[in-house]
Amino acid sequence: MIKAAVMGATGYAGAELVRLLSCHPDVQIVFLASHSYVGKKFSDIYPGMRSVCDIVLADDDISKAEESGADVLFLALPAGLASKYVTEKLLSRMCVIDLGADYRLHSADVYRTWYKTEHYSPELLEKAVYGLVEIHRDEIKGKRLVANPGCYTTCSILTLYPLVKNHLIDTDTIVIDAKSGTSGAGRGEKLTSLFCEVNENFKAYGVATHRHTPEIEQELSLASGKDIILQFTPHLVPMNRGILATCYAKLLDGVGDDDVKAAYEMYSSEPFVRIIDELPETRYVKGTNDIDISWRIDKRTGRIIALGAIDNLGKGAAGQAVQNMNLLFGLDETMGLAIAAGSPF
Amino acid sequence: MIKAAVMGATGYAGAELVRLLSCHPDVQIVFLASHSYVGKKFSDIYPGMRSVCDIVLADDDISKAEESGADVLFLALPAGLASKYVTEKLLSRMCVIDLGADYRLHSADVYRTWYKTEHYSPELLEKAVYGLVEIHRDEIKGKRLVANPGCYTTCSILTLYPLVKNHLIDTDTIVIDAKSGTSGAGRGEKLTSLFCEVNENFKAYGVATHRHTPEIEQELSLASGKDIILQFTPHLVPMNRGILATCYAKLLDGVGDDDVKAAYEMYSSEPFVRIIDELPETRYVKGTNDIDISWRIDKRTGRIIALGAIDNLGKGAAGQAVQNMNLLFGLDETMGLAIAAGSPF
Amino acid sequence: MIKAAVMGATGYAGAELVRLLSCHPDVQIVFLASHSYVGKKFSDIYPGMRSVCDIVLADDDISKAEESGADVLFLALPAGLASKYVTEKLLSRMCVIDLGADYRLHSADVYRTWYKTEHYSPELLEKAVYGLVEIHRDEIKGKRLVANPGCYTTCSILTLYPLVKNHLIDTDTIVIDAKSGTSGAGRGEKLTSLFCEVNENFKAYGVATHRHTPEIEQELSLASGKDIILQFTPHLVPMNRGILATCYAKLLDGVGDDDVKAAYEMYSSEPFVRIIDELPETRYVKGTNDIDISWRIDKRTGRIIALGAIDNLGKGAAGQAVQNMNLLFGLDETMGLAIAAGSPF
Amino acid sequence: MIKAAVMGATGYAGAELVRLLSCHPDVQIVFLASHSYVGKKFSDIYPGMRSVCDIVLADDDISKAEESGADVLFLALPAGLASKYVTEKLLSRMCVIDLGADYRLHSADVYRTWYKTEHYSPELLEKAVYGLVEIHRDEIKGKRLVANPGCYTTCSILTLYPLVKNHLIDTDTIVIDAKSGTSGAGRGEKLTSLFCEVNENFKAYGVATHRHTPEIEQELSLASGKDIILQFTPHLVPMNRGILATCYAKLLDGVGDDDVKAAYEMYSSEPFVRIIDELPETRYVKGTNDIDISWRIDKRTGRIIALGAIDNLGKGAAGQAVQNMNLLFGLDETMGLAIAAGSPF
Repeated sequence: MIKAAVMGATGYAGAELVRLLSCHPDVQIVFLASHSYVGKKFSDIYPGMRSVCDIVLADDDISKAEESGADVLFLALPAGLASKYVTEKLLSRMCVIDLGADYRLHSADVYRTWYKTEHYSPELLEKAVYGLVEIHRDEIKGKRLVANPGCYTTCSILTLYPLVKNHLIDTDTIVIDAKSGTSGAGRGEKLTSLFCEVNENFKAYGVATHRHTPEIEQELSLASGKDIILQFTPHLVPMNRGILATCYAKLLDGVGDDDVKAAYEMYSSEPFVRIIDELPETRYVKGTNDIDISWRIDKRTGRIIALGAIDNLGKGAAGQAVQNMNLLFGLDETMGLAIAAGSPF
Repeated sequence: MIKAAVMGATGYAGAELVRLLSCHPDVQIVFLASHSYVGKKFSDIYPGMRSVCDIVLADDDISKAEESGADVLFLALPAGLASKYVTEKLLSRMCVIDLGADYRLHSADVYRTWYKTEHYSPELLEKAVYGLVEIHRDEIKGKRLVANPGCYTTCSILTLYPLVKNHLIDTDTIVIDAKSGTSGAGRGEKLTSLFCEVNENFKAYGVATHRHTPEIEQELSLASGKDIILQFTPHLVPMNRGILATCYAKLLDGVGDDDVKAAYEMYSSEPFVRIIDELPETRYVKGTNDIDISWRIDKRTGRIIALGAIDNLGKGAAGQAVQNMNLLFGLDETMGLAIAAGSPF
Repeated sequence: MIKAAVMGATGYAGAELVRLLSCHPDVQIVFLASHSYVGKKFSDIYPGMRSVCDIVLADDDISKAEESGADVLFLALPAGLASKYVTEKLLSRMCVIDLGADYRLHSADVYRTWYKTEHYSPELLEKAVYGLVEIHRDEIKGKRLVANPGCYTTCSILTLYPLVKNHLIDTDTIVIDAKSGTSGAGRGEKLTSLFCEVNENFKAYGVATHRHTPEIEQELSLASGKDIILQFTPHLVPMNRGILATCYAKLLDGVGDDDVKAAYEMYSSEPFVRIIDELPETRYVKGTNDIDISWRIDKRTGRIIALGAIDNLGKGAAGQAVQNMNLLFGLDETMGLAIAAGSPF
Repeated sequence: MIKAAVMGATGYAGAELVRLLSCHPDVQIVFLASHSYVGKKFSDIYPGMRSVCDIVLADDDISKAEESGADVLFLALPAGLASKYVTEKLLSRMCVIDLGADYRLHSADVYRTWYKTEHYSPELLEKAVYGLVEIHRDEIKGKRLVANPGCYTTCSILTLYPLVKNHLIDTDTIVIDAKSGTSGAGRGEKLTSLFCEVNENFKAYGVATHRHTPEIEQELSLASGKDIILQFTPHLVPMNRGILATCYAKLLDGVGDDDVKAAYEMYSSEPFVRIIDELPETRYVKGTNDIDISWRIDKRTGRIIALGAIDNLGKGAAGQAVQNMNLLFGLDETMGLAIAAGSPF
């Protein structure tokens, strides 16, 4: 039994993680913390978990997590907090899987530029690994600090990676037009998250400024072997869950269908990646840790349009965190993770 | 391993059943039939099940199901078909769990009156059992033909049963105002089921004529010991899943909080019934086989308002069918059934 | 040109009112106040009104409204504020139409009991008129203080009034099961109003305690000639706008279809009431000041089920306020009010 | 009074047109035809129009429309029908505004290639005018046959036109990622349009093959003076109405903010175009004939991201058709058209 602790357990990503961990056959939750609901039972806040997880929420004091006896600590916190909480000492006692952004970017400078906040433990950046299992599986094994990738980034990177890695596209022409369900905006009591402000509406936000941009660029640059600057635009969809990334790029001269097909073969034994003929739809990955990927080549324009779909709270957050935990602890990667999406759901 | 067959596998209830059976640790699906999609893979119709259930769909010829070697046959068919298909011979080869209405009413006359269609095997009615496990558990064991209850009826009966059974309410004053998500209307290509006709709308339908009425009356009459005639009104909610039943009745003289509380104690060891203090919400049972029940006594009016919430495709259809199967085959009733609802989902 | 002022202009009801007034051919808006957005343009908060209403928002100081030169002042404020703001002096300078609850109940005691707050001008209650035009048209003319009815109450009273007035039903058996779109919860930044908390969910709230109960009882008691106590239960629908009230009561002995039909004839020349054969749906009144009413008699149970549908921000708030203004100022009641609902919308 | 006739009156675009025409102060509807609902009243199909438009629907026999005495005939028909119906003789009796695609493309060959259907009156193509008023106002005046632009195309062309016309962008890099509400899919009883198939889902469709592509290319090529081939991808949003087009292109060397600003000045006196600082949202144009446009320059990538939002049934169909009618008949272009969007709606 892996003993697990979660800080930030009552945000949407944290709560989905608690749900997955509660149903995981090899995990026992030993500690849950919440900034806003100290002293309440988890199931008071998420009544769908009544009798499944009635643990009382501790406050978000990292020392309590450290003393909890957990083997793994999940952090689902606002930007900047994890970099304060994680220390060498903490890592000596338990693995940390951070669902936030603090350890994703290799450069503290890039972090400061995009996140407009200080990084409090830049010395740990080199100890962290970017936890996109399909790309970094071997590096993740044995690590103590895993930076769980962002939701948009997971979807964008996995969709484009084979094309970049195999030098099939002109990376200067990459445009990622991404769309997310509203749970991505979190559980904060913000005007812009109200039902009547979101429902029956569609909008872009963070145009040219969204923080997931450098994360995608970092990973695709590593794949490419040269610096990539790309266009990323997120949009808000009036639905609870799901991300679709529509990715555009000019194919390099002479690249055809077969090359693309061959490139995506890299995922052929991945349990959570489905390369499909039909265009992906978010509903078919809802509640799962899957990503569905498809592409079209437009001969008229010379572009490839590659599309990926994930559940932002699944593969885009909590699901991927459990996948990382499974990998760290030598379990089957799929353990405790759904691969069958109900429909309608 | 229980060998399972499903006819009507591509309707919403049938497909949810296939999803549950596919993930059930003790079940192997050996046969799936569909009227509309013969020859296609199940996962072509429900791509969220890719690589999970790629079985090719047979046509809806009952003899093929009969020859399939299944231990249990689930029927998820339009009214009238099951009563044609089920025979003594079929029942001698496999158990049948009918998700439709054909074997729910004990009287073929009542069936004809409300369903406006003939019943083709009235002689089997006495062999069938009404598969509401919480009420008829002992009768179900050992039966070969289980009539899986309707969605509205499951929610209404379970909510009101303790009050009726214990003679706490004036049964002449029962009003059930029920609301269902749109998956209850099925997957038929009807104008009234289009997104733009349902979204941003709320309406009642079937006022004073809905077919679930006699089913609720039958079960509550049995509980009461006398004939009950009640008011039932269904409404359509612009959401995928979920039923909430708001049930009204006058309390009999002298009945108080403690009596009501004691009555609901009958569910105290039920794995799928949660008696809660807060008012039930459909989201907290979504995707599960649970029912959440709560009540309020209004001293001003002398009424009790009892509210129940289920997932219409879960406890209201496919989940309950699996629960019945588990019971028939001596498994733990909860096997293969979710009790933790994610949120938001 | 009627000069109009609005306090509470940026709540949902207030903003709908500003939209209607802006498009009204005989109205000029001279003053808008907002607690939260002082100094901003109205169209900064509601960009759909860009170039239509760019008035700068004043703070919610009643003396400024009083000095604004308005002929009519609309109040769309939280409970308790209007009873502080309205004075004889204010009424001597302008008519007041209060969209809140402070002047709806004839008894300050009943107000205190249900609203749990003090009433600061009980002496004005007898000067106020309950602004349900279809019931109190003649009393409203010439008044200076109009209490614009609540949303649930408008729908419930208009639906039941003919039955009560004509003594067709046993008033002791009245159950009103009402459902509202989420704009009824207002624009406050509350957790329970977040998209992800409302979407794909259905729930009841305020069971046996909702403040609109005494308002319905007051008006129906007046119609009946004796005190009526009834059951009222509101529910939250995942849509922006619309209320459906499903109203149940036992018919008195000997009452039949013709009696009911005759009773609803009272609305035959009302411009905003449509008695229809089909069951009402909220979408068909969305954006209008209409109410659609229909009924069914259930011979089995002896009950009538009467259903009414309105737009909670239209006839249930801002539309009715404009109707009241039109009446007060001798205009055609329909002026500036839509009667044609687009679909889908 | 302009006498108006509509064929295809009961589709979503046709019905919105009937609503607008019914409320237009200078229009009298003299004829409505529908393929599916002959002999029914319009308000039987669209009950939100009860008492507003109770005209009985004729069958879709063009000769009846021709004999109707109308001054203007609107066609809202499936592709291919208009090109059969419109003749010189018809045009000699009444103006025709076609909401379909048959007369939008100047080349019958291009039409055949993208629409996979024959064009039955190619000789009329040169008599038709592309009815995008903001671009072709002077050419439209005096014409007898107006091709009302498509929904995606209206939004995309108006958003990009100033950039192309003023040679500010590299037209080879244009990517249009567009998203539409579900009313754009029409009222047909298709599986993919069911509530449960659309709700809580997001997907792309028609990637690299959508028929609106050549229409956008035609108009932008005319603006540019050279042939433009561009990328266009539509997506389906789970909401009733609204289109957002996110348009990407590389800025040409030396082009800056001021050049872009100056280019969009071309719309400064347009009554339906709002150039705004904030990012556009579909809700703020819902129900109106407006387009909201904004842009961002990304210095990192050298791209401009221009975004436009319309109501697909408003400016994208029925609203624009009324605007064209107003122009043809010498009325104020805004007559009968809303410019104030309610919110939430």
